[in-house]
Amino acid sequence: MKIAFFGPETTYTHQAAIKHFEKNNEFVPKKTIGEVFESVDKNETEFGVVPVENSTEGSVAHTLDSFIESNLKIVAEIVLPIKHCLLSNSKFEEIKKIYSHQQPLGQCKKYLQLNFSDVERIESLSTASAAISASKEKYSAAIASELAGERFGLNILQKEINDEKDNQTRFFVIGKSNTKPTGKDKTTILFSTKNVPGALYSVLGVLTKHKINMTKIESRPSKKKTWEVVFFVEFEGHYLDKLISEGLKDIESNCVFFKVLGSYPAKISISD
Amino acid sequence: MKIAFFGPETTYTHQAAIKHFEKNNEFVPKKTIGEVFESVDKNETEFGVVPVENSTEGSVAHTLDSFIESNLKIVAEIVLPIKHCLLSNSKFEEIKKIYSHQQPLGQCKKYLQLNFSDVERIESLSTASAAISASKEKYSAAIASELAGERFGLNILQKEINDEKDNQTRFFVIGKSNTKPTGKDKTTILFSTKNVPGALYSVLGVLTKHKINMTKIESRPSKKKTWEVVFFVEFEGHYLDKLISEGLKDIESNCVFFKVLGSYPAKISISD
Repeated sequence: MKIAFFGPETTYTHQAAIKHFEKNNEFVPKKTIGEVFESVDKNETEFGVVPVENSTEGSVAHTLDSFIESNLKIVAEIVLPIKHCLLSNSKFEEIKKIYSHQQPLGQCKKYLQLNFSDVERIESLSTASAAISASKEKYSAAIASELAGERFGLNILQKEINDEKDNQTRFFVIGKSNTKPTGKDKTTILFSTKNVPGALYSVLGVLTKHKINMTKIESRPSKKKTWEVVFFVEFEGHYLDKLISEGLKDIESNCVFFKVLGSYPAKISISD
Repeated sequence: MKIAFFGPETTYTHQAAIKHFEKNNEFVPKKTIGEVFESVDKNETEFGVVPVENSTEGSVAHTLDSFIESNLKIVAEIVLPIKHCLLSNSKFEEIKKIYSHQQPLGQCKKYLQLNFSDVERIESLSTASAAISASKEKYSAAIASELAGERFGLNILQKEINDEKDNQTRFFVIGKSNTKPTGKDKTTILFSTKNVPGALYSVLGVLTKHKINMTKIESRPSKKKTWEVVFFVEFEGHYLDKLISEGLKDIESNCVFFKVLGSYPAKISISD
């Protein structure tokens, strides 16, 4: 099987992909989250792996936005503990520039303020490309995984520099088929409500009425009308469960736009 | 009066600050959103101006997060139409690198994919610092305001390159005092609910019961416990209005953490 992931090689998304699929599959790195969606959509690969949110830094906006226009399904979630390293071939006190992706820079914000308040921070497309930049340039460092340090020949100056020690990232596996119920599933839906007061409350009321336990709600601009938003809501259960499928019909009748992004085995839930 | 803003000079936040305050005040540029909060907190400046959300690209995470630990109030909102320019001293077809802040890069995503799919994009701390980088380096360009182009001596290669033509950004003025009711106000509250199913629904139910019209809901990691979130909710009305102040007491009793960030004259509302 071919699996696209938000690369290049050694990113945390790459590690999540290897954790979920057997190692002997073919893993295809893509430069952007959009290209992962495109690759699965065009059948170049069977599945794609993209980051969706981090426990410290919040949602990955580009992943959520990609679902608005895509018809791909969420087929699984993966949760990975994230331990960032400071990687460099210079000494700690010589560092003048630090490269990383926007998310790890946020996850190590206090560490950076404390140790490198005057050092330039450069946002790279990924942690792996940050490591590549740091390997080519004197007096520069990268915040990336231990694996990226090994692969791109950088020394580990410090391990676990993330501000929250229990730092986790959640990834989605995307594909074209639906996943069957396992008895412990979660479902993600995407919708926009009618533009009337209390519309969102009515939708959430349907969840309560059908005893559906919501685990997440997130809003993003619809990109269709200024200040109009779409909601991503997650809850426990599978869209094929009787109560849930009744609830979803009810919700759809309260919305101007509605789709089920997928049901998949739960790896995190608020009732854990 | 001294007003801190997310700078350097010529950023959109600078333009929003000038739009809201009289020109003859002293405007003090700060390198990060955190430093704007700090400056007002330490009485170095009386007010601060920070971006909070864009109609295309969504919330500015660092601004929302800064309110979690700060005791500053929202005293006003400012809405500014945003028109991005492609600025460079090289020719369009010679451009090898494009500098900008993460938000404008998101707001011009389709434009960049169409015209510069193979060109390196570098995320800068602000649009102004992107313009400074582009002014110093051959074959590079910046996405920033017309004003930044004038100030840093760059030619305007193309105007209004944002994907959505009606692109607006909303800013908060932060300070230490509360703003009096004007009859057409909005209020922002921040809370986290008890960790029980249906807790958020109960809170939103209070709004409906008191006929309060919610205009926005957003969640962010609490940074206290893995996967725990705090909610930012906005609604029409002033916290001193009788119905609202009763509702807020009711909401507080449903929460483990609760604060009113401020009430201020409404510049956008979903009922407009």
